[in-house]
Amino acid sequence: MSQAIKDVVIVGAGFGGLSAAKELAKAPVNVTIIDQQNHHLFQPLLYQVATASLTPAEIAVPIRHVLRSQRNAQVIMDRVVGVDKDAQTVATESGRVLPYDALVIATGARHSYFGRDDWAQFAPGLKTLNDALGLREKILTAFEKAEIVVDGDPDAARRFQTFVVVGAGPTGVELAGAIAELAQSVMRDFRKISKENNRIILLEGGPRVLPSFAEDLSQRAARDLEALGVEVRTGAMVTDIAAGTVTTDQGDIAAETVVWAAGVQASPAGIWLSLPVTRSGHVEVDTTLRPDGLENVYVIGDAARHEANGSPLPGIAPVAKQMGIYVGRRLAALARGRTPTRGFRYADAGTLATIGRNSAVAEIYGIKMKGFPGWLLWGAAHVYFLIGFKNRLFVMLHWLWLYVTWQRGVRLIMHREPGGDV
Amino acid sequence: MSQAIKDVVIVGAGFGGLSAAKELAKAPVNVTIIDQQNHHLFQPLLYQVATASLTPAEIAVPIRHVLRSQRNAQVIMDRVVGVDKDAQTVATESGRVLPYDALVIATGARHSYFGRDDWAQFAPGLKTLNDALGLREKILTAFEKAEIVVDGDPDAARRFQTFVVVGAGPTGVELAGAIAELAQSVMRDFRKISKENNRIILLEGGPRVLPSFAEDLSQRAARDLEALGVEVRTGAMVTDIAAGTVTTDQGDIAAETVVWAAGVQASPAGIWLSLPVTRSGHVEVDTTLRPDGLENVYVIGDAARHEANGSPLPGIAPVAKQMGIYVGRRLAALARGRTPTRGFRYADAGTLATIGRNSAVAEIYGIKMKGFPGWLLWGAAHVYFLIGFKNRLFVMLHWLWLYVTWQRGVRLIMHREPGGDV
Repeated sequence: MSQAIKDVVIVGAGFGGLSAAKELAKAPVNVTIIDQQNHHLFQPLLYQVATASLTPAEIAVPIRHVLRSQRNAQVIMDRVVGVDKDAQTVATESGRVLPYDALVIATGARHSYFGRDDWAQFAPGLKTLNDALGLREKILTAFEKAEIVVDGDPDAARRFQTFVVVGAGPTGVELAGAIAELAQSVMRDFRKISKENNRIILLEGGPRVLPSFAEDLSQRAARDLEALGVEVRTGAMVTDIAAGTVTTDQGDIAAETVVWAAGVQASPAGIWLSLPVTRSGHVEVDTTLRPDGLENVYVIGDAARHEANGSPLPGIAPVAKQMGIYVGRRLAALARGRTPTRGFRYADAGTLATIGRNSAVAEIYGIKMKGFPGWLLWGAAHVYFLIGFKNRLFVMLHWLWLYVTWQRGVRLIMHREPGGDV
Repeated sequence: MSQAIKDVVIVGAGFGGLSAAKELAKAPVNVTIIDQQNHHLFQPLLYQVATASLTPAEIAVPIRHVLRSQRNAQVIMDRVVGVDKDAQTVATESGRVLPYDALVIATGARHSYFGRDDWAQFAPGLKTLNDALGLREKILTAFEKAEIVVDGDPDAARRFQTFVVVGAGPTGVELAGAIAELAQSVMRDFRKISKENNRIILLEGGPRVLPSFAEDLSQRAARDLEALGVEVRTGAMVTDIAAGTVTTDQGDIAAETVVWAAGVQASPAGIWLSLPVTRSGHVEVDTTLRPDGLENVYVIGDAARHEANGSPLPGIAPVAKQMGIYVGRRLAALARGRTPTRGFRYADAGTLATIGRNSAVAEIYGIKMKGFPGWLLWGAAHVYFLIGFKNRLFVMLHWLWLYVTWQRGVRLIMHREPGGDV
């Protein structure tokens, strides 16, 4: 059970993996970070790419660029296919076998359809830039199609102008609000279809939106959403999704665009490690963020399940970031021959969600904020956490621009399927 | 042969079509502009999207947005499938039949492989945002792959680090220069592959680069390209292109990335109108920009072939723009019952091409400029012609930023094929 840490392999360059890598910058180790994407993605703002407020480049930055000056780190764009715990190696799609003294698995989560993966084609989720661009194309195309068919087939036009978001967690709430605003702002560019036919419906199985927030903030969020024209339906169970229709226990909805923001499924860390996982695929980790009985393997962020005073930590960026920093420091200590004793403790700064362009609900260190102050706080927090000054600068300028002009500079339909543009 | 113009249908929202539409803003007509894309594209800067200098949103703007305040114009995102000259109607893919009193065809051109369309899969061209994003992904992925294989298979790595541009017109020259700079700037982010193995090869069948420019400017351009590390090979005929190999009469080149900037093929205007076309598919138009014998049909821009003092006008933005303005004014006059007499005359402002980030060759109103002054002129001209203030502002900021920092904020690989990111 050697503690001699030399080669650290980190799988995943999200908030968790990247924080761990950076924390090891000055440690006497070789860091190898593997990701199947070439970029780190600021997922909390992904919905703004999907709704044509921000461009992909504003919320993503090449991983190599982030770590360019960290000489003890190398970046590999590849996909991990397995882990050999005994040999202490990671196998990748391109056939490499990477030995490790310590392995950090920060592979995040994807959306889960609770066993109904056939819904995915009708109700895509939002986890990658590709998801966001696909959704952006779908939303913008819907208005174009509505404009074309409205004369001959008003029902079809209404279907194209109806957008359903399933799940009222932060992503669902923010997405619904953003779609409502996008719908409003594009209408001025169309000649035939009418504002009145725009419908944005937010479906939530639970009793209230933003279940992880305080009750009064949930109520405020629901009110703000309705003010934006979003129909909020709580206690609504989706029983089926097909082309053009969402079936719920409260009746059917005819909609061409449906977005899935309900369930998440942790990545295959558990399978790689042949460990038991939770129903949603999470690997249980102890206070050192290691799965029970594994000396040199850490699982952090959305891939992990860690209980703090009775309840599991939420799958949000701050948790992943703090876990990454903890593991990075721990490994740095081990590499220097020290024996770390402190366990991981999550410092809960609070939760934030925005509803449209000038309202948000926030709870920071117990202080609740609503409306415009909340929105400012939300904006500041997000811009601040954006990696790379360039992105901060451009996002701020861009937001300012949008705020002042209501323009949608990013409203491009790019037909992402090859040859689709011909 | 009525002159009563009421319904004007414009096919294509490039420089030609959009200029015509705008010119008709105050005329007593109904303008319908049809495009299969939802955006107007600033094609002269497309190569900068392909080389990760600019984002799609910086060189494209929704057509609806451009014409939002022009009340007599409506925009339809659809594809034209045919024209009935006798009935004076345009048929679209979605099944619409649009009657016209005057038809303006401004459908541009696509690249042509001179009958070797099988080359397209190995040597894509650059006409749409989709082309540009595909090329960007290909170039960036090549370096990632080189980094992965360089230890085990240095030859493969060299092949991944070799980029061939076929055709040394403005697009080919600008692209080769930009790839050379991108290659240089990304190298600092990699740990294993070496600068020395980067090869950018520009192939030109003719005796010199930029054939449409003055001899000395061509020579300067070639020198500047070589200074950037581009291998310029003139008089080189491509005889075959396959996966990983370009065959020329000067020998084979092992390259994973090949870009086609050689031939263009005009769009199917000729077929729609059942008119004879040139070898490259252009429709011959007279001094009123109408095909011989057609009273109410105009063909402009890259789709048309118009001779001015002996030689055909080049397929560049200024020509399309001036043609659009001419037709717009002509139709406005006809709609007002006047009879326009003036024929189209192209005011040649000159030609511009840039080589890398601080050199360009330009000939404006007979004045030749080279090097940095030429580059400044080039930048100013392009930013000035960008449609929409927002784009101008952001492109300028972004360029300034790139210029000062050498950063590549847009270096994202997004796996555009559906599911490719999973």
